[in-house]
Amino acid sequence: MKQNVLYSNNVDATLNSIIEGGNYNAIMVHVDENTRQLALPLLPCLSNAHIIEIAPGDNNKNIDTLSRVWSEMAQCGATRHSLMVNLGGGMVTDLGGFAAATFKRGIDFVNVPTTLLGAIDASVGGKTGINFNGLKNEIGAFAPAKAVIVSTIFFHTLSEQEFKSGYAEMLKHAMLHSHESFEQLLNFDFKAIDYDLLLQMMQESLLIKQHIVEQDPNEQGIRKALNLGHTVGHAFESKALADGKPVPHGFAVAWGLVTEAVLSHILKQFPSKDLYSLVHFVKDNYGAFHITCDHYDQIIDLMRHDKKSRDREINLTLLEDCGSPIINNTINEDDIKTALDIYRDLFKC
Amino acid sequence: MKQNVLYSNNVDATLNSIIEGGNYNAIMVHVDENTRQLALPLLPCLSNAHIIEIAPGDNNKNIDTLSRVWSEMAQCGATRHSLMVNLGGGMVTDLGGFAAATFKRGIDFVNVPTTLLGAIDASVGGKTGINFNGLKNEIGAFAPAKAVIVSTIFFHTLSEQEFKSGYAEMLKHAMLHSHESFEQLLNFDFKAIDYDLLLQMMQESLLIKQHIVEQDPNEQGIRKALNLGHTVGHAFESKALADGKPVPHGFAVAWGLVTEAVLSHILKQFPSKDLYSLVHFVKDNYGAFHITCDHYDQIIDLMRHDKKSRDREINLTLLEDCGSPIINNTINEDDIKTALDIYRDLFKC
Repeated sequence: MKQNVLYSNNVDATLNSIIEGGNYNAIMVHVDENTRQLALPLLPCLSNAHIIEIAPGDNNKNIDTLSRVWSEMAQCGATRHSLMVNLGGGMVTDLGGFAAATFKRGIDFVNVPTTLLGAIDASVGGKTGINFNGLKNEIGAFAPAKAVIVSTIFFHTLSEQEFKSGYAEMLKHAMLHSHESFEQLLNFDFKAIDYDLLLQMMQESLLIKQHIVEQDPNEQGIRKALNLGHTVGHAFESKALADGKPVPHGFAVAWGLVTEAVLSHILKQFPSKDLYSLVHFVKDNYGAFHITCDHYDQIIDLMRHDKKSRDREINLTLLEDCGSPIINNTINEDDIKTALDIYRDLFKC
Repeated sequence: MKQNVLYSNNVDATLNSIIEGGNYNAIMVHVDENTRQLALPLLPCLSNAHIIEIAPGDNNKNIDTLSRVWSEMAQCGATRHSLMVNLGGGMVTDLGGFAAATFKRGIDFVNVPTTLLGAIDASVGGKTGINFNGLKNEIGAFAPAKAVIVSTIFFHTLSEQEFKSGYAEMLKHAMLHSHESFEQLLNFDFKAIDYDLLLQMMQESLLIKQHIVEQDPNEQGIRKALNLGHTVGHAFESKALADGKPVPHGFAVAWGLVTEAVLSHILKQFPSKDLYSLVHFVKDNYGAFHITCDHYDQIIDLMRHDKKSRDREINLTLLEDCGSPIINNTINEDDIKTALDIYRDLFKC
């Protein structure tokens, strides 16, 4: 499942060498409306590619869009010897990766993430898929891209919200890795982004992830650590979606990281100093996700539906400290409610 | 991609030991209307399983049925620690295998083929998938079943047509393997089926296939030999489907084997004696697929759309002799038309 992750701001040349080396009979580029307009012009090597364009947004990451992409691939005359380039955020790479992995039982694809979230979340691990029946990534496959080209050249047009959404995933990796990484992330200057430093930090972040994924490609053990912040985060995200007020994935992860850090503090003595640093950072940069105690049952039910759940148990990764994750903690409802109480208190919501 | 293929007429005990050994939190059995009625009662170990029933027939092997199966899996509360048992013909195992391989990015599944075609065609190789846009198995994945249980206990209720449809795939394996295997197959007594001999012949047939698949799991080389009879066969099958007069898959394969044996005779000196034995056997048991020269262009176009085609070239496996396949023969239209002329002449159609 190891993917070839290439770190380069010379994306066009890097992609071109993959295309030329592959002897493909057709090149497709899968984009959304935004990346067609903003990212595709930066890649002249794709000027003759078949363009498959979809509507942006996680709400379009569904079976209907997938069917349309499959149809367009067929219309392009794609065969097993064709290449799909997924140029976009995580939605484009997840859906496009799954489309490619299942078209004629699998063709080559290259992911070119255009968002920080896409780069960090979807570059390593080979996860592809779509939402289904209101559940995120319910349908999908583990399928490695032929290559992933990680760069910062597309980030200049990202909104602050999009940027911070991706940054939350880097924060997660830092918390899994070390106190030093965590501190570095908390001190990054969002007002004057140093893109060279950022590419280097992204590489470090992805190496942390890659190291974990390689130890456990099928998510039976330590890879579950990467779920930090996501069980609660996905529940918040699903609730927001159900309420018709979707929130950016990384924002949900940031709030999830706080809630799971609270649980880590209660159950595993995660240091209060680090918890408060995290809360401070998240409040400043992500604001708050507003819930009341009336929402607890809904949130807990959504947590029970997590893909990684067994027997509807709620299974979390907790931290004893930054760099010391403990996987496979079965959490009872009372502790979750306590953590949600504390979360609301910390965020004054 | 190696699958665990178990040959046993004690299917219930074999399946039960898999279920008990797996510590699953939910067992689903995926059936069609026919296998629910005729096959499921033979397996008491599934009496408490969630039943997911679909309508039979290759025309239902589509995205709508797949979506419904995914939904029902979710409704059953299936998690990554659940098991799907696909009990049926190739349509049930192909679609159910793909549903399981993509539900939450993949859960365990066991295939229990109930037809000879399903046992021979879908037991080895890990191919799963659905039809899409009028093309067979256009969408799918290579995904190994946890186990495949091959038996003859479900064959007593097969129609003669269903039985012969599966037998054509065994004939293909025999032709790829040896003159001796080919002769054994031609001499089998369809009027008084010896099921013990049949299970043994099935095992030999699947070992031939398994040996080829293991040499080339990703279908880059020798595995293409298994396509013998299928490029023409699929074109016949697609044409029949387009005409609203579907033919059984194995019948199309039998006619495809004849046409490709004619091409092998023309281009690779496949012995005329064996060609005539094959024609005699196929005419006697499968009748003829009626085409006229007005259909040649349509058939050739369908052959160009074959999943394994590159650049719309028609690429066939041919035989120098039984047991001596030659892969990667690019065939020109004139030779195909000549072969179709000879096919029509041999079959008087």
